[in-house]
Amino acid sequence: MDDDTPEARWERAVEIPLSLASLAFLAAYAALVLAPRPGTAWDDMWLAVLVLCWLAFAVDYAVRWRFSGRGPGFVRAHLLDTLVLALPLLRPLRIVRVYESLKRRRGLPRLPLYARVVCYAGLSTVLLGFTGALAVYQQEKGAPGTEMHGFGDAVWWAVSTLSTVGYGDVVPVTTGGRVIAAVMMAGGLALLGAVTGSFSGWLLQAFAAREEDAEGPRGGAPRGPGTGV
Amino acid sequence: MDDDTPEARWERAVEIPLSLASLAFLAAYAALVLAPRPGTAWDDMWLAVLVLCWLAFAVDYAVRWRFSGRGPGFVRAHLLDTLVLALPLLRPLRIVRVYESLKRRRGLPRLPLYARVVCYAGLSTVLLGFTGALAVYQQEKGAPGTEMHGFGDAVWWAVSTLSTVGYGDVVPVTTGGRVIAAVMMAGGLALLGAVTGSFSGWLLQAFAAREEDAEGPRGGAPRGPGTGV
Amino acid sequence: MDDDTPEARWERAVEIPLSLASLAFLAAYAALVLAPRPGTAWDDMWLAVLVLCWLAFAVDYAVRWRFSGRGPGFVRAHLLDTLVLALPLLRPLRIVRVYESLKRRRGLPRLPLYARVVCYAGLSTVLLGFTGALAVYQQEKGAPGTEMHGFGDAVWWAVSTLSTVGYGDVVPVTTGGRVIAAVMMAGGLALLGAVTGSFSGWLLQAFAAREEDAEGPRGGAPRGPGTGV
Amino acid sequence: MDDDTPEARWERAVEIPLSLASLAFLAAYAALVLAPRPGTAWDDMWLAVLVLCWLAFAVDYAVRWRFSGRGPGFVRAHLLDTLVLALPLLRPLRIVRVYESLKRRRGLPRLPLYARVVCYAGLSTVLLGFTGALAVYQQEKGAPGTEMHGFGDAVWWAVSTLSTVGYGDVVPVTTGGRVIAAVMMAGGLALLGAVTGSFSGWLLQAFAAREEDAEGPRGGAPRGPGTGV
Repeated sequence: MDDDTPEARWERAVEIPLSLASLAFLAAYAALVLAPRPGTAWDDMWLAVLVLCWLAFAVDYAVRWRFSGRGPGFVRAHLLDTLVLALPLLRPLRIVRVYESLKRRRGLPRLPLYARVVCYAGLSTVLLGFTGALAVYQQEKGAPGTEMHGFGDAVWWAVSTLSTVGYGDVVPVTTGGRVIAAVMMAGGLALLGAVTGSFSGWLLQAFAAREEDAEGPRGGAPRGPGTGV
Repeated sequence: MDDDTPEARWERAVEIPLSLASLAFLAAYAALVLAPRPGTAWDDMWLAVLVLCWLAFAVDYAVRWRFSGRGPGFVRAHLLDTLVLALPLLRPLRIVRVYESLKRRRGLPRLPLYARVVCYAGLSTVLLGFTGALAVYQQEKGAPGTEMHGFGDAVWWAVSTLSTVGYGDVVPVTTGGRVIAAVMMAGGLALLGAVTGSFSGWLLQAFAAREEDAEGPRGGAPRGPGTGV
Repeated sequence: MDDDTPEARWERAVEIPLSLASLAFLAAYAALVLAPRPGTAWDDMWLAVLVLCWLAFAVDYAVRWRFSGRGPGFVRAHLLDTLVLALPLLRPLRIVRVYESLKRRRGLPRLPLYARVVCYAGLSTVLLGFTGALAVYQQEKGAPGTEMHGFGDAVWWAVSTLSTVGYGDVVPVTTGGRVIAAVMMAGGLALLGAVTGSFSGWLLQAFAAREEDAEGPRGGAPRGPGTGV
Repeated sequence: MDDDTPEARWERAVEIPLSLASLAFLAAYAALVLAPRPGTAWDDMWLAVLVLCWLAFAVDYAVRWRFSGRGPGFVRAHLLDTLVLALPLLRPLRIVRVYESLKRRRGLPRLPLYARVVCYAGLSTVLLGFTGALAVYQQEKGAPGTEMHGFGDAVWWAVSTLSTVGYGDVVPVTTGGRVIAAVMMAGGLALLGAVTGSFSGWLLQAFAAREEDAEGPRGGAPRGPGTGV
């Protein structure tokens, strides 16, 4: 983690620029989907941002492949990175990790394990929902028979889908929208399971700890430091 | 817990009054939403109750901030309290904790850990559902195209949403209603995960304990106290 | 468990008759709901069965209260039994426990812990679904605007509800039906969580055991009995 | 596992042929359902494939029964195999296990426990969804009032059902389709619980391991091999 190999130094150097690039990518994509102005310089600009950011991701991928000194095995060992390269909309999900690693490097206090998993998976779910709503809205916009009349409807659909409530009042009707929805469900379910599972673990731990607090002083037994949960 | 710092004494002193205030807040809000009588003294009275209770919460927050001797860091360390101050409808959720601490202080027998988490999260879910139904009903009442024709429909919607069943026969259609619904889903899912996770743990524990009961006497091995689960 | 107090002997004596009575109760209720023949001797007979079975449950409750030698505290300590007395449709859920205890008494081999919890919770879910479908169907039958045109629809509704899928093509529209549905959801969710949680634990255990099997012989280390999972 | 009993040798010998047969069975069934050409030689051929594959499964079942040297007890001890014999569409689910055992025999590196359960249950879910979509589509095709106008709709239905989202825009309306849907839900829920539960466990483990990585060097304590998670 704190080593000085070229690979580690590269990763530390590009971490923040690439995070900003992934946010720019998301913003440009959102601008193109939500407020398209065909034939104007705005759309050309957003498109240029998309292409530039994607190039940055590709360069990063290539450099890390080079440093690894491995052949095609790199692709298999970094399946997630390869997937993110193909679907750069998923890239912002890495920001959570960057934030975490920044915090650690500066020695800031960190949340307990369960809380961190809850935050990590929760934030990822929010990002996934926003990205999915954007992508599905792009597919559904103006499709015949759709109930998705605005981006608000798309966000409402994403919320009701990721929570597995699934009212069915707003539903993707195009094939493209349904494929994106299926991918989003698969990812969202796994993340949601992580959120609820960890939250449950956290609650159990908190209750167990409070019990100890309450019973410790009565027993009168001296407690050394570090027995807290 | 049993210490005598001014902060702890303050907390013990206001615990019950504030719990009653939070119930009064919920009742006044329910009265305003469910049986509004505009222009009468009743509505003014309920409004006064709302404002007074909220002031009580604000004073409690200010006093605890003062006692803590901390600057803006207090807000960050008590994010949940700050949120509850902004959205006092969530305040009654604290009652469960108060009930628990009352029981402990009087030395009453308590439920085992899993059962307590189930009760705590279950009760919180019920309170959250009732509050959410009230808030959504206020938004949806009379909105064009809504299927929510009465408070009964709103409660039915809350039940089908918090259980993640989501029939879709009654659905919020206004933006305000959907935002509240999204917040309710997020909280409800986490609580539900805690309920089912703890219930599952409880069941496993109960089965394991029964097995021990059944097999212990046959093995004939003497069992000391404290080997129970 | 194997003790000879009057209470234990009573429980062993009435266990099987009461289980049969609970099945008869369910059957009579199903006959009344699914094939009502008002004004005939059949309906009177089924009604008589209902009343007789319920009386049997009441007698059992009274006897056990008596044996316990406790006052009103008995009601609080046996909340579940009291609930079952009020809602005898839930009584068949106890059959699973009776079957289990029969098997143990005869020394039959039992399933491992996780598998037993899966079976127990799974069977309870099936019973709950069938009972709920019956009760909701009774409320909804012939209600204006209902989509529940037959018992098949009611079962389909119960399946889609207990799995939390909730299509919404068949939905209770009466207040009575919705109250029963809410109770069913609460119970079903907890049971479902127990089923999936235990199944997940079972799978993890099975995988871990297989791994040990596969790696043990290679390591060449002698394994004593009882190291299996 | 590595023993040389006739039973084990038989299992190793038929493992791959039977897996291929199960894929052929699925393919033939898909061809019959998705592109039926009644009265042509194609349909006869696919039917022949179905029958032949099923015979292969039956022979395998009979041989293993024989080897076991057991009477009717074999049926009870191999309930899952018996079920698969009756519903050969479920047979491809075994492929995951075969792939796993192949990998182990060749000494290839394997994924950690949680990851393997996630893969196993995830792949099973995909196979179950595809098979269920096929079987439901066969029932619903051309049924009056159905919204399932093509196989794409059936797949979309399967996705929204297995994720327990359940929009309700596409729903089985025939009795046959609903029975299959109920079986699919039961299996899918258990598998889904295993996927999300294991994923959650995996994430917690990964976070805990990263923490150790980050804190180890600071503490300066030498770490021996094998302390990794």
